Amino acid sequence: MNYKMTGRFIAQILLLEALFMIPAMFISLYCGENASVKAFLVTMVLLLVVSCLLRFLCKGAKSNFYATDGMVCVALSWIVLSLAGSLPFVLSGAIPKFIDALFEIVSGFTTTGASILPEVESLPKGIMYWRSFSHWVGGMGVLVFLLAIVPSTDRGKGFTMHLLRAESPGPSVGKLVPKMRKTAAILYILYVGLTIADIIFLVLGKMDVFEAVCNAFGTAGTGGFGIKNDSIAGYSIYIQWVCTVFMMLFGVNFNCYYLLIMRQFKALFKNEEVRCYFGISIMSAALIAIDIRKIYPTIHETIRHACFQVASIMTTTGFATTDFDTWPSFSKTILLTLMVIGACAGSTGGGLKCARVLLLFKNLRRNIHKILHPRRVQVVHVDGTPVDEKIINGTSVYLAAYFILVVLSILLISVDNKPLVTNLSAVLSCFNNIGPGLEIVGPTGNFSSYSAFSKLVLIFDMLAGRLEIFPILALISRGAWKKA
Amino acid sequence: MNYKMTGRFIAQILLLEALFMIPAMFISLYCGENASVKAFLVTMVLLLVVSCLLRFLCKGAKSNFYATDGMVCVALSWIVLSLAGSLPFVLSGAIPKFIDALFEIVSGFTTTGASILPEVESLPKGIMYWRSFSHWVGGMGVLVFLLAIVPSTDRGKGFTMHLLRAESPGPSVGKLVPKMRKTAAILYILYVGLTIADIIFLVLGKMDVFEAVCNAFGTAGTGGFGIKNDSIAGYSIYIQWVCTVFMMLFGVNFNCYYLLIMRQFKALFKNEEVRCYFGISIMSAALIAIDIRKIYPTIHETIRHACFQVASIMTTTGFATTDFDTWPSFSKTILLTLMVIGACAGSTGGGLKCARVLLLFKNLRRNIHKILHPRRVQVVHVDGTPVDEKIINGTSVYLAAYFILVVLSILLISVDNKPLVTNLSAVLSCFNNIGPGLEIVGPTGNFSSYSAFSKLVLIFDMLAGRLEIFPILALISRGAWKKA
Repeated sequence: MNYKMTGRFIAQILLLEALFMIPAMFISLYCGENASVKAFLVTMVLLLVVSCLLRFLCKGAKSNFYATDGMVCVALSWIVLSLAGSLPFVLSGAIPKFIDALFEIVSGFTTTGASILPEVESLPKGIMYWRSFSHWVGGMGVLVFLLAIVPSTDRGKGFTMHLLRAESPGPSVGKLVPKMRKTAAILYILYVGLTIADIIFLVLGKMDVFEAVCNAFGTAGTGGFGIKNDSIAGYSIYIQWVCTVFMMLFGVNFNCYYLLIMRQFKALFKNEEVRCYFGISIMSAALIAIDIRKIYPTIHETIRHACFQVASIMTTTGFATTDFDTWPSFSKTILLTLMVIGACAGSTGGGLKCARVLLLFKNLRRNIHKILHPRRVQVVHVDGTPVDEKIINGTSVYLAAYFILVVLSILLISVDNKPLVTNLSAVLSCFNNIGPGLEIVGPTGNFSSYSAFSKLVLIFDMLAGRLEIFPILALISRGAWKKA
Repeated sequence: MNYKMTGRFIAQILLLEALFMIPAMFISLYCGENASVKAFLVTMVLLLVVSCLLRFLCKGAKSNFYATDGMVCVALSWIVLSLAGSLPFVLSGAIPKFIDALFEIVSGFTTTGASILPEVESLPKGIMYWRSFSHWVGGMGVLVFLLAIVPSTDRGKGFTMHLLRAESPGPSVGKLVPKMRKTAAILYILYVGLTIADIIFLVLGKMDVFEAVCNAFGTAGTGGFGIKNDSIAGYSIYIQWVCTVFMMLFGVNFNCYYLLIMRQFKALFKNEEVRCYFGISIMSAALIAIDIRKIYPTIHETIRHACFQVASIMTTTGFATTDFDTWPSFSKTILLTLMVIGACAGSTGGGLKCARVLLLFKNLRRNIHKILHPRRVQVVHVDGTPVDEKIINGTSVYLAAYFILVVLSILLISVDNKPLVTNLSAVLSCFNNIGPGLEIVGPTGNFSSYSAFSKLVLIFDMLAGRLEIFPILALISRGAWKKA
């Protein structure tokens, strides 16, 4: 474990977070929210001091930096980021209890969108902005951002690569261009571009600019924090469709946009994951629309609600235009399944990721073939190219880890004696970074009634889900902490 | 696919099933249940005719028999066995609807114990015996029985081994002695011995002999069909404890009893699976006892119910002494988790099997180590010996297949619009061959209210769970049906 380099990196992260708070502080200042202004200022000063101290203490770092260090560094960064990010909530009095503030900001950074707030409209504007912004920066990755904008002086060999690998979602991380840093920069340019497009479309629908920005943050990060108590339900039909389309767009593997811009249409259409992603979404929306046809007065409304909710859950955003907890079992079960499947790898969405589900199915098919023809060599192909056995094994192990952690989490939070469906959907919702679950934690409910212990478990789940389990497991295993 | 040999084997299975019906018919005769006597007689004649016909049609079978053939043969045998076994129910009028009768007998043979009967005490005695007997013969395996008792003339190379491999539960099938046929015979001798011991202990507790035999069948096969409407709740405390102990004993890997008899104590104590099995059971019972301490008047009653229900669910038997659906969430979640874990490999119990859970955990730990120390060679050990990578991969694939089939099944039966917990627990209960689930299908409920389509899905689940997925998947894949 390279302590010093990790320390220096975390110092940079804290500095960056302080910078991120500047717009939120100015919004508070503009709106005359003195408590919030003070909260942001105090937090920023604190972050600067700690950052400088860390930088000073971690002088003379060695340059060797391994995959383990990358894992631990990412996990630690996210925890420190969350601890610091929760301070404005507590100090401004918007969310007085620390555990609640931590839950809210982890839910923000991990783009979960699960909230402990029974109502959000009374939040100070600056705080509201910070809450939504956490989705945006968490979606594509804070570390990715830092690595993309800050030039790589004093970074060791493999540093950038190990960190990007550990923070980026999906079974395998592709490079768009030979340099990892440039890849990160391209991803962020695409991300900013799409976000701005979303804001423009929302403002064209006569949405207030502040609301449009916050909503676009929630959509872009596939987060789902609403700024209205009824999420998106109160907005116009046009805006609901804009949200639906942009949620789907942000759930697509960003490499595809790069291919699109580079006019590599052939490679684009070969992408099985994206086809699988759209295929599952369309089929689910159709099945749900048939199932809920008697609930809504018109066909258009039925289709709109079905499409919106499918897009919201499949991309793990978590916005809602209707209370899907009142839908029939079949529709609810489809939504729970979509929660687990999730969006594409390399998008801002969570869940197992379509790429993994695809690999699991293909590997299962391969194994059946193997049983039928034991002597024939069988290779799994995705997008027409053979997949490395390591990635297939990694996916199987990921599923096992996912399964074990989900079951353990449900067991732990069931001590609160809430109904089984509430607990199951709460854990699935947090682990897959969605937001709402069913029943008590459904679209009209919130997570406030869970005990502090259960909230900690769910915080762990959100982080484990966002960072794809292994960095968090590496963090809590003894082996990672040995001196190199 | 070796059609002729499969046909000849199925002819033997049908003959054996007709023989199995003789005691049931005599019981019906003794009790003066004319409709049942007629039903058994008609079925037996039909089976004999079909058996002879098949034998005649499948003359001159080739001797090459591959693993695929074994899988398909086992899956087909179980389906034919179930179809034939359901006839007495329908013909006697005890269960008039065919799909219900099929559900009941598949539940019997697969040792699930899920019932569509709202009450069982009014069943004719012969039918009741046949229902309970199906547990006993399904537990250790009908094919195992046939292979053990019938000498191996006209069987091809690898025939016995492939069939035993396909029918026996667990990630890897061990041979006790070099000859597979002798291994099967030893297993059945142990099985008969333990069953007789159970009957003796029950009769010592002043249980009626007929009831003792039926109950012992349910316990030995870890099936769980009760012959009383309140399952085991109405019996004395002594009998409840006898059931608890014997359920646990039948959930142990039978190889252990062989080691015990052979006085190979060292190998016995090295067995990690059995330690894991007892460890999980004891811990679960303790946690549940603490959780439900306020529900029952005395400590002894609390401990007795906790131990009984844990033994019943962990071994996938499914007897009940109390309505655990009324227990707090924590206890219910523990029980749902135990449903998935299941008993030991090589026992009569179902579920994922402790051996697989152990392998999944060990493989996960290995993968975390691999991340921390990428260059160190890591091997998974069980019982002190290294495990073949093929078995580890097989376990991961098994988990993926399990996961996919469970989710698909829940989706399919949710069309009936029953509550989520009912559907989830129904599928888990059937797939893991337990019996009762929660809510509508809880210990005081039954499966009768599901539609015929859902019952078919659950029948598929029971068979897939009992035969450990791959034989059933092989059966429905095109590749298996090609002529060799």
